[in-house]
Amino acid sequence: MLQVNPERFLKTLHQLREFGAARVGKGVVRPAYSPQDIAARDWIAQQIRSAGLDARFDPVGNLFGLATDKSLLLGSHTDSQPEGGWLDGALGVMAALEITRASKEQGGPPVSVVNFQDEEGRFGVTTGSAVWSGQLSLESADQLEDRSGISFSDARKTLGDRCGDFIDPRHFNGFVEMHIEQGPSLDRAWQKIGVVTDIVGIRDLNITFCGAQNHAGTTPMDARQDAFQALAKFNQLLNDRFRNIVTPQTVWTIGHVALHPNAASIVPGKVMFSMQWRDGDAHRLLQMENVVRDTASDIARDQNMALSFGVMRGLDPVAMDEKLQQALQTSAGEIAPNAWRSMVSGALHDATNVAALMPTAMLFVPSINGISHDFCEDTSEDDLVVGLRVLARAVDRLS
Amino acid sequence: MLQVNPERFLKTLHQLREFGAARVGKGVVRPAYSPQDIAARDWIAQQIRSAGLDARFDPVGNLFGLATDKSLLLGSHTDSQPEGGWLDGALGVMAALEITRASKEQGGPPVSVVNFQDEEGRFGVTTGSAVWSGQLSLESADQLEDRSGISFSDARKTLGDRCGDFIDPRHFNGFVEMHIEQGPSLDRAWQKIGVVTDIVGIRDLNITFCGAQNHAGTTPMDARQDAFQALAKFNQLLNDRFRNIVTPQTVWTIGHVALHPNAASIVPGKVMFSMQWRDGDAHRLLQMENVVRDTASDIARDQNMALSFGVMRGLDPVAMDEKLQQALQTSAGEIAPNAWRSMVSGALHDATNVAALMPTAMLFVPSINGISHDFCEDTSEDDLVVGLRVLARAVDRLS
Repeated sequence: MLQVNPERFLKTLHQLREFGAARVGKGVVRPAYSPQDIAARDWIAQQIRSAGLDARFDPVGNLFGLATDKSLLLGSHTDSQPEGGWLDGALGVMAALEITRASKEQGGPPVSVVNFQDEEGRFGVTTGSAVWSGQLSLESADQLEDRSGISFSDARKTLGDRCGDFIDPRHFNGFVEMHIEQGPSLDRAWQKIGVVTDIVGIRDLNITFCGAQNHAGTTPMDARQDAFQALAKFNQLLNDRFRNIVTPQTVWTIGHVALHPNAASIVPGKVMFSMQWRDGDAHRLLQMENVVRDTASDIARDQNMALSFGVMRGLDPVAMDEKLQQALQTSAGEIAPNAWRSMVSGALHDATNVAALMPTAMLFVPSINGISHDFCEDTSEDDLVVGLRVLARAVDRLS
Repeated sequence: MLQVNPERFLKTLHQLREFGAARVGKGVVRPAYSPQDIAARDWIAQQIRSAGLDARFDPVGNLFGLATDKSLLLGSHTDSQPEGGWLDGALGVMAALEITRASKEQGGPPVSVVNFQDEEGRFGVTTGSAVWSGQLSLESADQLEDRSGISFSDARKTLGDRCGDFIDPRHFNGFVEMHIEQGPSLDRAWQKIGVVTDIVGIRDLNITFCGAQNHAGTTPMDARQDAFQALAKFNQLLNDRFRNIVTPQTVWTIGHVALHPNAASIVPGKVMFSMQWRDGDAHRLLQMENVVRDTASDIARDQNMALSFGVMRGLDPVAMDEKLQQALQTSAGEIAPNAWRSMVSGALHDATNVAALMPTAMLFVPSINGISHDFCEDTSEDDLVVGLRVLARAVDRLS
């Protein structure tokens, strides 16, 4: 049975943290293609080679550590948000590296490693794995720009001669990604492992109400067509109507609001706002869409507003592979009995893309207080090691 | 009895419209101290001289036309919003000019004219009359800047050698300002004249709710501290609680909303918003303040938000002079029987400031569809002439 080395695993995880260390808590600043990100990838490439694997960068900077034979692929990503935590995707990459090392040393099954690029979406969304999996063409990706106007095309040139061809996915017979939960469910329940059943689908719809811009002193309340009031009533009615449709795992958010003209002394004539909802069930996502559209129409009619919808954007839910899930569940039951659960992932991950290529699964460890994408992000070292052990046991079981 | 000349009045009103004509409807673009504004004031100074009055600019560009003897002062302002209507304050200035002309020609009572500067608040709020009335020191005004960073001090220098000293308010025994209503009350009621009883008081309070910024995918609904949801619930509860306090003349507005970080995929952790309310009764303004503060506190406690209030800003309600009101009411009853009302002004005007110096009153004519501060602003010419006649009759009555 494969025996991992927790001390070595934690030591390399802390070493990785030095690349882009924020010096605030354990935070890191390691956005995709930054000097810190590239230095981290170069160091991981060395680690891959010292573990006896073939280190290969593809054209967008996804870094693979290839076993000689067809194998399971383990990993995640080491790029961070502009203000990121030390674990996030880094955890999954360093756990993968430890397992390949242990397996090589002990004559275990072949295991490959991947460190995807720009999962955090400096350019797109999960850009590196989206290109590798064929969800996004390289030509389209090259047109993407970050907030400062730098193109993906120019950013990946900074990798210079590191890059070779894309890696043939037929080299792998499955993908397992270990990650922090980034939410509070495991932490609140005092549990150590989440085995992901589905990665949620997501829907984004911009909604605009147009009423009438008016003087905030001379326009009586009953003569107003106040766009902010329409938004507030929409929100209230939507929350009521969602009650009979949603599950405790469903989430919805109004996160962006733009009032026009946005001045204290003017009755706002227009509001554009974002409506986002996520669920593991595609049918429920559609039911929710119908409620969103109907509710906006009802409010527009009641409040005398013109209504327009933006383009509906989204990704469908992705189910994790049954056999891989089973291996993770059985291993979790052995290593963390009564301290694991099956759960939906509310965040997108590289696994969403890789699932289009091969059987895919995910494993979560707790996030303290559910905090992520923040310098305060953390997980107890005991929990990190439990996650590593469950992943190693599952690899053993699958080989 | 003083006989005004409606044709001459309307002709000069249309001539004034050529200064800064927007060529969209009857709109004008004549912000304070713009070349168009200064050209209009120079033309009005000529008109004042040709009416036999002494034309005088004070240090901030308020333009007076002084009668030889102590007199009533009539007028308003001719600066406009960046996109303004042709009437607004221009109406009151040109009506004043016609009455001084008619009175000179007919040996009527002495009447003086004023055209205040920057009523529309390119720099402050009713800046010119605020300085003249002593509500705002010239030193403080000089520090004010417009949106492009130009100071009031520099702007008033463009007047060059036009300016003399401030005019002694003891030259006048009262002030009457004619203005368009800028709201829909008279138009909706098919009425022609509003005699203002009070100019409303105004309160402005910025409110901030701080919850917790979180991932919109991984944070369950019951674990959120969503600042937008707190704002929406505050709005709903406030509307309910105001019902037992307000009158049909009371207004309140949330016109400015700043969510943080204002991104579709992030549960908003913070919202700063403006809360403004207006009423003619100082006691009611205070009752409303208590409800605003209590409701924000209740929401903060229920929704687990930190709460902070900005500095409370505002102006107290100003009552119009009884004797001047009486003269306007009697004249309105004679010229527009059953087609006038007493009413509160929901907008601030130069009269708010002048009331600190002398007995003051205001007279409104209808705004078609209540539209103002817009190129579409208009009033029927018949209604403009009714307003002129009521003002002239009141001047007669007061002399």
